[in-house]
Amino acid sequence: MITVKDARALLFDLAPQMAEETVPLVKALGRVLAHDVSAKRTQPPFAASAMDGYGLRADEVSKGASFRVIGEAAAGSRFIGPVALGQAVRIFTGAPVPDDVGFVVIQEDVDRVGDTITITGDTGDNSNIRPAGGDFAEGQVFAAPKRLGPADIALLASMNIAEVPVTRQPDVTLISTGDELVMPGETPGPDQIIASNTFGLKALFDQAGAQTRILPIARDNVASLKTALDLAKGADLVITIGGASVGDHDLVAQVAADLGLQRAFYKVAMRPGKPLMAGTIDGAMMIGLPGNPVSAMVCGILFAVPVIQAMLGLPAQAPGVRQVELATDISANGSREHYMRAVVSDGLLTPLDNQDSSLLSVLSRANGLLIRPIGDPARPAGHMVDYIPF
Amino acid sequence: MITVKDARALLFDLAPQMAEETVPLVKALGRVLAHDVSAKRTQPPFAASAMDGYGLRADEVSKGASFRVIGEAAAGSRFIGPVALGQAVRIFTGAPVPDDVGFVVIQEDVDRVGDTITITGDTGDNSNIRPAGGDFAEGQVFAAPKRLGPADIALLASMNIAEVPVTRQPDVTLISTGDELVMPGETPGPDQIIASNTFGLKALFDQAGAQTRILPIARDNVASLKTALDLAKGADLVITIGGASVGDHDLVAQVAADLGLQRAFYKVAMRPGKPLMAGTIDGAMMIGLPGNPVSAMVCGILFAVPVIQAMLGLPAQAPGVRQVELATDISANGSREHYMRAVVSDGLLTPLDNQDSSLLSVLSRANGLLIRPIGDPARPAGHMVDYIPF
Repeated sequence: MITVKDARALLFDLAPQMAEETVPLVKALGRVLAHDVSAKRTQPPFAASAMDGYGLRADEVSKGASFRVIGEAAAGSRFIGPVALGQAVRIFTGAPVPDDVGFVVIQEDVDRVGDTITITGDTGDNSNIRPAGGDFAEGQVFAAPKRLGPADIALLASMNIAEVPVTRQPDVTLISTGDELVMPGETPGPDQIIASNTFGLKALFDQAGAQTRILPIARDNVASLKTALDLAKGADLVITIGGASVGDHDLVAQVAADLGLQRAFYKVAMRPGKPLMAGTIDGAMMIGLPGNPVSAMVCGILFAVPVIQAMLGLPAQAPGVRQVELATDISANGSREHYMRAVVSDGLLTPLDNQDSSLLSVLSRANGLLIRPIGDPARPAGHMVDYIPF
Repeated sequence: MITVKDARALLFDLAPQMAEETVPLVKALGRVLAHDVSAKRTQPPFAASAMDGYGLRADEVSKGASFRVIGEAAAGSRFIGPVALGQAVRIFTGAPVPDDVGFVVIQEDVDRVGDTITITGDTGDNSNIRPAGGDFAEGQVFAAPKRLGPADIALLASMNIAEVPVTRQPDVTLISTGDELVMPGETPGPDQIIASNTFGLKALFDQAGAQTRILPIARDNVASLKTALDLAKGADLVITIGGASVGDHDLVAQVAADLGLQRAFYKVAMRPGKPLMAGTIDGAMMIGLPGNPVSAMVCGILFAVPVIQAMLGLPAQAPGVRQVELATDISANGSREHYMRAVVSDGLLTPLDNQDSSLLSVLSRANGLLIRPIGDPARPAGHMVDYIPF
């Protein structure tokens, strides 16, 4: 058996890199920037007023001093001409500051009578002027790779980058296998259950940035599996669910091998999960996940999501971990890493009672996976532990 | 001036509740469940084997005992008939357990020769049988409201809920105002800058579950603003950016009032931000955000996103807060709540150097907002503080 970390490293070696494409800024949320871009302009492009007030020559600011207002500068429309001694310009937030002006007195610190203002307040040291280029200068680099969030989108807009180079979203294709499965909305026979893994995994992978397709359920026979794998052609990543273990009824590995799968088969020292298949078939990466619902989702979080992120150009790394305090005592862990479904609330983590890998109701109540290392001893309430939030 | 909390409460009072609609399960990720649903079936619908092995009568399990294998039970295809004393059924994970079988011995604990098996291992106490209904019973409630994540989607699938009742996504319409603005991709004049707020806010609101439209930029005159507000008709929430303060060039409040805005105008005791307009116009809720880029985004996070969540049927509450340790000393805060752009890394929060509300480059580097309460004293490195992650 190999460790979770080693299995993930083997998967990263197989992950294909997605090509680049260009999308309009309005479609760039959540996409991964493919290469560095640089600002097409300087922001602000001119010294700008940070406040509504009056612009003066810097050396004339003093309490009690009076000035004649000779014009106005607003956002989008500058004041043109000199500002001499004893003169002021009415100025609004975001307006270009006239060349001669070195200080903006905020309007609350001024009395105005007709065209004359008098400074009545304590103006302080802050000139209320934003220097040209204070946010960024033309050519400043916005570095890739980065998954673009709302603040990044706003920054790219202000850099005048209307079209954004991003990595293509991987086409992930899901095949669940089993004679016992029917699709949601169908009426299951007495021995059947509803296919749930594909729906949960599609949601998980779409959230990670993939475009995920669900193929028809493959039955436990060679012809049906071959049909499903044929339908998957053209995908960047083919994910099968079930049939990755060693039971007599597991055909996926055998059929995939017939179709040319360069196969690796890992027994991973973990709970839930354990069997994991990986390889390359028809130029696509393939991952075989275990069929138990919770095992499939946990292996999706631990293995497939990091692979999708690497395909998108993000660093090849494990899911982000946080520290939290245990709410209850936990017993010693055995020879496999255990990813326990847990609830984190008010800074305390409570592992859920029933950790059976078939229980989706337990997974749905959880908001994180407590990581128990191999051979971890019993831990008391209050001990700090690692978990993966979701 | 009113507090952030009071301003948010006033906004919640104005927030309209979205109607319900039905979407296919495959489109339900991130949507908010509108009302309780209940499982249409029991899972598992029958006692099922948790392992690959051999099913026996429970009272016959003992090391060294031998059994004749009389048939097979696989997932999707049960064994029919009695299992008598001395008999065993080959059984696979997920298969229905025959009526007479009370224990599944895993295959690793068995020697098989022809049709005869002998128990060779220590079978332990676990019967390896999942009881019928162990995950959930028909009729079990999945409670609303809840924003549906991948594990919820998987659980709803296994409950055979193929169509999901969710709240409609609010139609949020964004209007930025100002003579100085041009759209990304255009060439700004010497006094102009690129409209960035609408793009950042659209990303923020889409992420929160809205469907956000960007309208053409409204110029600083009555006719242009009226046109924009006319174009916004039919929206559930109209958000204007800029023109919410008290400067001479701020026309939004005046024009909106002419169009029948039932207006509330708040000076909120906060940095960045302060001016906030809210009301109802033509049956839609309206929020006026400040025009500084960072103020607009921060007010979007603190006010508009919680409003959108409330519209979606989620609890009306403040953004989620986490605790973290300060990396550096910080000075005392004044009379307004301060939401400082900060970087949280390795469990330590560092406020960014320049907190000017025009700096999108600083906001894009940040991954959280440090919350400084009104009158908060100076705090040393190591002190625990509240922040809003993003």
